[in-house]
Amino acid sequence: MERILINQIKENDGKKILIKGRVLNMRNLSNVVFLIVQDYTGTIQTVFEKADEVKIGDAVAIEGLAKKEPRSKYGFEIQGEKVEVISNITEDLPFDLAKNDLNLNLPTLLDNRTLSLRHPKVQAIFKLYDILLKGYEIVMREEGFTEVKTPKILGAATEGGANFFKVKYFDKEATLAQSPQFYKQIMVGVFERVFEIGSTFRAEPHFTTRHVNEYISLDAEMGFIKDFNDVADMLNKILKKMFLMIGEEGKQYLDMYNIKISEVPNQIPRVKLSEIRKIVKEKYNYEIPKDTDIDPEGERLAGRYAKEEFNSDFIFITHYPWKDKPFYTMPSEENPEETYGFDLIFKGLEIVTGSQRIHTYKQLMENMKKKKIKPNGMEFYLDTFKFAMPPHGGWGMGSERLIQKILGLESIKEAILFPRDVKRLVP
Amino acid sequence: MERILINQIKENDGKKILIKGRVLNMRNLSNVVFLIVQDYTGTIQTVFEKADEVKIGDAVAIEGLAKKEPRSKYGFEIQGEKVEVISNITEDLPFDLAKNDLNLNLPTLLDNRTLSLRHPKVQAIFKLYDILLKGYEIVMREEGFTEVKTPKILGAATEGGANFFKVKYFDKEATLAQSPQFYKQIMVGVFERVFEIGSTFRAEPHFTTRHVNEYISLDAEMGFIKDFNDVADMLNKILKKMFLMIGEEGKQYLDMYNIKISEVPNQIPRVKLSEIRKIVKEKYNYEIPKDTDIDPEGERLAGRYAKEEFNSDFIFITHYPWKDKPFYTMPSEENPEETYGFDLIFKGLEIVTGSQRIHTYKQLMENMKKKKIKPNGMEFYLDTFKFAMPPHGGWGMGSERLIQKILGLESIKEAILFPRDVKRLVP
Repeated sequence: MERILINQIKENDGKKILIKGRVLNMRNLSNVVFLIVQDYTGTIQTVFEKADEVKIGDAVAIEGLAKKEPRSKYGFEIQGEKVEVISNITEDLPFDLAKNDLNLNLPTLLDNRTLSLRHPKVQAIFKLYDILLKGYEIVMREEGFTEVKTPKILGAATEGGANFFKVKYFDKEATLAQSPQFYKQIMVGVFERVFEIGSTFRAEPHFTTRHVNEYISLDAEMGFIKDFNDVADMLNKILKKMFLMIGEEGKQYLDMYNIKISEVPNQIPRVKLSEIRKIVKEKYNYEIPKDTDIDPEGERLAGRYAKEEFNSDFIFITHYPWKDKPFYTMPSEENPEETYGFDLIFKGLEIVTGSQRIHTYKQLMENMKKKKIKPNGMEFYLDTFKFAMPPHGGWGMGSERLIQKILGLESIKEAILFPRDVKRLVP
Repeated sequence: MERILINQIKENDGKKILIKGRVLNMRNLSNVVFLIVQDYTGTIQTVFEKADEVKIGDAVAIEGLAKKEPRSKYGFEIQGEKVEVISNITEDLPFDLAKNDLNLNLPTLLDNRTLSLRHPKVQAIFKLYDILLKGYEIVMREEGFTEVKTPKILGAATEGGANFFKVKYFDKEATLAQSPQFYKQIMVGVFERVFEIGSTFRAEPHFTTRHVNEYISLDAEMGFIKDFNDVADMLNKILKKMFLMIGEEGKQYLDMYNIKISEVPNQIPRVKLSEIRKIVKEKYNYEIPKDTDIDPEGERLAGRYAKEEFNSDFIFITHYPWKDKPFYTMPSEENPEETYGFDLIFKGLEIVTGSQRIHTYKQLMENMKKKKIKPNGMEFYLDTFKFAMPPHGGWGMGSERLIQKILGLESIKEAILFPRDVKRLVP
C-alpha cells in the first residue's frame, strides 16, 4: 500500500489508507485509544481499540479508514486497523512533549534542543522562520534584487577589527565575516540591487536576550538612490509584503501564540535620533546615556513612543552620530556630526541597521582619515570606488530578532535552532 | 523627472524619459555616438550627437526620447537629449570591459574581481546562479521541505576531524562546519523534510579546478524513506524542475555561452560503483586506482559512459564502499562491504553526495565501533537516535559545481563571486 500524506486525507474520505508519521500524543479512554500523528504536511487523530505497543514519540505506519469527523478539530479521523512501529523510543523522553506547553527554562530547552524542537509550539517558531526566509527570497526578487553569496572567511579584520573571530587558514590568520558589507557594496557596482541571506559571526562577549554570536543576516544593497530615504522606503515596502505573507501563511503558527501579526504602516515614522533623545526625556523622563548613541532602554521607549504617537510597532530612528557609525556611512550634509545612518526599531528592539554609504573614493579616504582608520587589507574594497560607484545604500536585518519580536519570545535563542553564545557551542 | 527602468522603455514609445545606469560600451561614428547603458532590468542603446564627457564605466543619468528601433537588437533606442555623469571612472580600467570576451587568465580575473564581475559574460554566470538558488528554494518547498539554518561554528570536529578549519571561540577552540550533516539529520526528527542553503568550509589543501575551501552547499534530508532510491528519486525530480527553470529563465545568459541546458532524464541511470569500475576498464581501458573509491578520471569516464549508453549528462553511481563512507552511512544489507551511499555525476564531475543514513542508535554505535570512531563531542547527535528517528537519507549538492558544469567553465572559481583557495583570501 502506498503512503498518503495527512493533508491528502480529506480527498480519501471513506477509503482505506496508509499514513506514516510521529506519535505526538496518546489518550487512553476506557475502550479506545487515540493516537495523534504528525507528518510533514499536518496532524491527524487516529482511533484504535488498543495500541499497547506504541509510545509517544514513536515513528509509526498506520493503516485505517479515513472518515469525516466533525467533532475532531482536524475535521477527519482515521479508524485505525493496523499500527506498525517503524522506529521506537528506546529511552524515556526527558520531558513531556505531549503537554500544551513545555515550560522549560532556557538552558534545559537548549541543552535538550534535539528533542525540544519536536514540540508543536517550538516547531511553530521555525515554521514561521521558514516563511520569513521564503518571504525575503520572493519579495527581494520581486523588487529586482539579485541573490548573491559572499565569502565568510575574510583576509583582514575590517571595520576596525574588534569583535571578529579568528580562523587558522593554512599558514595565514583569517577572520569570520561580521557582515557582507564590503562585498554587497561592491556588488552594487555589478548588479545595482543585490540581497544575501547568510551566516554572520560576532565575537561579542554579551550575555543578553537579544545577542548571539552567530546569526543569519538578511542583507540588501541598492544603487542609484537619491538619499537614504529611498533605502528606508524599500525596506518599508519589503517588510510590509513579508509581514502580510507571514500573517497569511503562518496563521496557524501565530494562533498557537495568540499573536496577531503587526501591521506594517505604509510609511513607518522616521524620527531623528537627536529628537528621540529629547522625546524620551520629556515623555518618559529617561535620559539616554551620553556615551552611547542609544541604549536598549532608549530603543524600548522609542518603540513605546511609536506605538502611542503613531500606533505603529515600527519606527525608523535616523541620523545616527558620525562618531558612532562605520567609516563608510554617508555623513549628513546639513550637520557633519550626523550621518545618513538609521536603525529600524520593531516593538522596542533594533532589528535593522542601514544607511546611505559614501560612494566616491575621495570622500571615503577623507572620512577614513578623520576616523584614523588605515586602509590595510581593505584596498580591494576601497579601489572599487575609483570606478564609478553609484550613490547607494542598504541594510542588514537580524532574521532571528524579527521572529523573536513577532512571537514575543523572551530570548533570541528561542528563535534559533542551535544557538551559539559565549558558553554554548553544543548542540 | 522620475527615473524609469530599462525594461519599461517599451511602454514609453515616443515619450521623453529618464534612465539611470552604467555605460557598458561606447561607439563613436562620424557624427553620432552610441552609449550602451545597463541598469538592473536590462540594457539599451542611446544615441547622442556627442558625449565627450562620458567614459565607458561611468554611472550616468540620461534624458531622451524612447523610440522603436527595429534595427537595434534591443528593439528600442533612446534619442539622447541630456547626459549627466552621476559618478565617474577616475582611473583607467585595468582591462577592456567593452570587449565581447575578457580573455583574462584566472589569477588576473580573480585579482581584479570587483571589476571583472561587471563584464556581461561574467554577470551572466551569477545571474544563472541567482536562478539556481531561486529554483532550489522554490522546488524544495513544493516538495514539502522546510528551510532551516544550522550553525557553522561547531563545538567539536566531527566525522573524523580532518580538514576542519579551527576557530578561536572565546576561551575555547571550535571548528567550522564541513557540512550541516548532523543538524539536518536531527531536523528530520522535527520536520521530516528539511533543506538548507549554507556556507561550508573545507580545510583541504587542494589545487584543482573543482575544489575551493568555502562553498555553498544545497543540502536536503528526508524521512520515512523505503530505501536510498527514494532519496535519488527526489533529487532526480528536484534537478529536473531546477534545470527546466534555469533553461527558461536563464536563456539569455546560456545563449551568451552558446549553451543548451542539459535535459534531466525522468530516470537518471543508476549503476553500482563496482559495475562502473568494470565498465570503465572494459570500454575505455582505464583502471580506477585500487586505493580510491573512484578518481576524477573514473568520474569523467562514468560520465562518458552515461552519455554514450543512455544519452544522459547525469549518472548515479551507487553502493560506495563501506570503508570509504562516513560512519552514519547505511551499510548494504546484501554486501557489508558496500553502503547505500551514492554520488551524482554531471558531465563527468561529482556534484552531489548522498546516502541513506543509519537511523537506529544500536546500529550507529556498532558501525562507529567497527570504524574505530569515538563518540566524543557527538553525544548530542548520537543520543537523538534513541528517540525514534525514522529511516531517512539526504544529499549535499555543490551549487558552484553545478553552474561550472552547466556553463562548461574551466574552474569552479569562475562560478564563485569571491573564491577562497589555499592562497586566496582577498578580495
